Amino acid sequence: MTVEVTTPAAVAVPGARMRREIAEQPAKWHDALTRGGEELRAVRARIWNRPPKAVLFVARGTSDHAALYANYLVQTALGVPAASASPSVVTLYGGAPDLRDVLVVAVSQSGGSPDLVAFLEMARAQGAATLTLTNDTDSALARISDETIDILAGRETAVAATKSYTGELLALAALFAGEETLAQLPALPELGEKVLAVATGPVEELAARYRYADRIMTAARGYSSATAREAALKLVETSYVSAHGMSSADLLHGPVALLDQSVPLLCFTSAGPDAREIAQLVDLAGERGVDVDVIGDGTVTGRTLPAVLPRDVSPELRPVLEILPAQLLAAEVAVARGYDPDAPRGLSKVTRTY
Amino acid sequence: MTVEVTTPAAVAVPGARMRREIAEQPAKWHDALTRGGEELRAVRARIWNRPPKAVLFVARGTSDHAALYANYLVQTALGVPAASASPSVVTLYGGAPDLRDVLVVAVSQSGGSPDLVAFLEMARAQGAATLTLTNDTDSALARISDETIDILAGRETAVAATKSYTGELLALAALFAGEETLAQLPALPELGEKVLAVATGPVEELAARYRYADRIMTAARGYSSATAREAALKLVETSYVSAHGMSSADLLHGPVALLDQSVPLLCFTSAGPDAREIAQLVDLAGERGVDVDVIGDGTVTGRTLPAVLPRDVSPELRPVLEILPAQLLAAEVAVARGYDPDAPRGLSKVTRTY
Repeated sequence: MTVEVTTPAAVAVPGARMRREIAEQPAKWHDALTRGGEELRAVRARIWNRPPKAVLFVARGTSDHAALYANYLVQTALGVPAASASPSVVTLYGGAPDLRDVLVVAVSQSGGSPDLVAFLEMARAQGAATLTLTNDTDSALARISDETIDILAGRETAVAATKSYTGELLALAALFAGEETLAQLPALPELGEKVLAVATGPVEELAARYRYADRIMTAARGYSSATAREAALKLVETSYVSAHGMSSADLLHGPVALLDQSVPLLCFTSAGPDAREIAQLVDLAGERGVDVDVIGDGTVTGRTLPAVLPRDVSPELRPVLEILPAQLLAAEVAVARGYDPDAPRGLSKVTRTY
Repeated sequence: MTVEVTTPAAVAVPGARMRREIAEQPAKWHDALTRGGEELRAVRARIWNRPPKAVLFVARGTSDHAALYANYLVQTALGVPAASASPSVVTLYGGAPDLRDVLVVAVSQSGGSPDLVAFLEMARAQGAATLTLTNDTDSALARISDETIDILAGRETAVAATKSYTGELLALAALFAGEETLAQLPALPELGEKVLAVATGPVEELAARYRYADRIMTAARGYSSATAREAALKLVETSYVSAHGMSSADLLHGPVALLDQSVPLLCFTSAGPDAREIAQLVDLAGERGVDVDVIGDGTVTGRTLPAVLPRDVSPELRPVLEILPAQLLAAEVAVARGYDPDAPRGLSKVTRTY
């Protein structure tokens, strides 16, 4: 006689969806680079063969952090001014700037935000070329955009976006990074699997330490400033902790006054030009008795976290990997506090702001 | 026999400097519009007669909030794409985008931030026209810039910037607002005096209520989103409260989950296209039992604050006035908590980030 042990489908393990989507990421990246590779190369070639005068990104929430990352790439690699635009210029004030020779890029998991749609419609009318990166190629944004990139993250069911974020980062890197960085893209899926395996244990310990924290500050610089903001947003969305994610430069211009023993500081840095400033911040925080840790390759170290990122990843691609431990952390802190990160209060998948 | 009562110079009243500089603002605006008026009109004429293809702002901290405000003005009134740039594109990664036909505007009270200087040097080399708004026309930024506007705020000695912020807003409005809005500028000094007089009492009551709050959220939309961010930064700098300032649209895309009875929400809105969304946010917050208040003209009301702003100020100029009650609030909350807002820990007037 055998006894079958089954888990009834109706019993939801808190955070099961979010954890599954976090774990899926390296496989999704592989898919995006292979199945989606041809489309990415074609759009890239059109952009680089005749670069626009400027690139304007429009995005909200998590996708706006991917856009922040892309701002650096476009200015550094493509050599074109880039910035993030405010949709309310159009939706509230009816603004219509001259956008001839400008590429407007909408980044949106759902492709459905009415304010982004309104901005893209204005942009087309004002002469811009338009490109949408989305997880839904049937969406309103995809329909009105000159070109659309499918980020191929697959259906995202957890309310806190994870795989759509790294899918957006990866597509943006494939479009806008320099040739040297581009050559490192195919290694990312394997590196991502390693990061997830190495980080899980240390992150569980960190989550136990953060369990009773009312506030958490995150900080990084340059490309990784997108990671600091996105890590804070994940903690806010899943765990209701008051998390501030900042550029370390902005932090040093004021909110550094908030740092004391009651607020842990989580930094993101690895070997690269941003490491010096983060090392200074870690020292300053340490002098004040702040509980400071670093997610990185060991170039700068904090209180307990070991190196969880591989060495020799270019700073341009590091954001794709370094958000993985932060996503795990958000799920773990939520569960430790008795919340279900798959069912956060007050959030839905598509937010309809105008 | 007469008794002279004098206050010895050595006895500093906590917050005396910050309060004095808050109170000085309307007089400084008058000065900037009269003594500085000719220079503002000349630079304005050069910009409007031959508009650039795009405007890029570089700034840090408080001045970056003034730049955020100007982003909306430039896109709506001048009809040219505008955005805020990240200096670390240059200082960390050596990026050098093509900036021909682009106007790069540095906004800096001190004019001394090395990262802004590096960005402006790159911008000149890459073909940009450069303009600096500063309170120190002998500063490094002023020296390397094609044109410089003196914001004429006078020496700012409080560490938390107040009059330099509204001086920057006013100069940016004088340069980039439409003709109709421009006609309202001369009325601002008198309106500012009224706002300070009307707001002082209600703000003291609000400060008493916020005294024990660990966190405060501030929210606004469009032009006023600069106010929400700047109000939060003032609270952080002076009172060590964990204050988040957000666009209400970004708030509704995630951090709305943080709103509960333990976190007061302070909104900024008056009659204008942003009022509808703020009213929705106030209702949503009210349903959750959030302690919500509104600084505005009474178009949208919260829990206790009466209307402290005049009616019929255009949304484009409202940020100059609506930050006044928030500056007073920051000073009052700091003093109520036993801090001296003139001597915040860990802050100095010029932050040297690279």
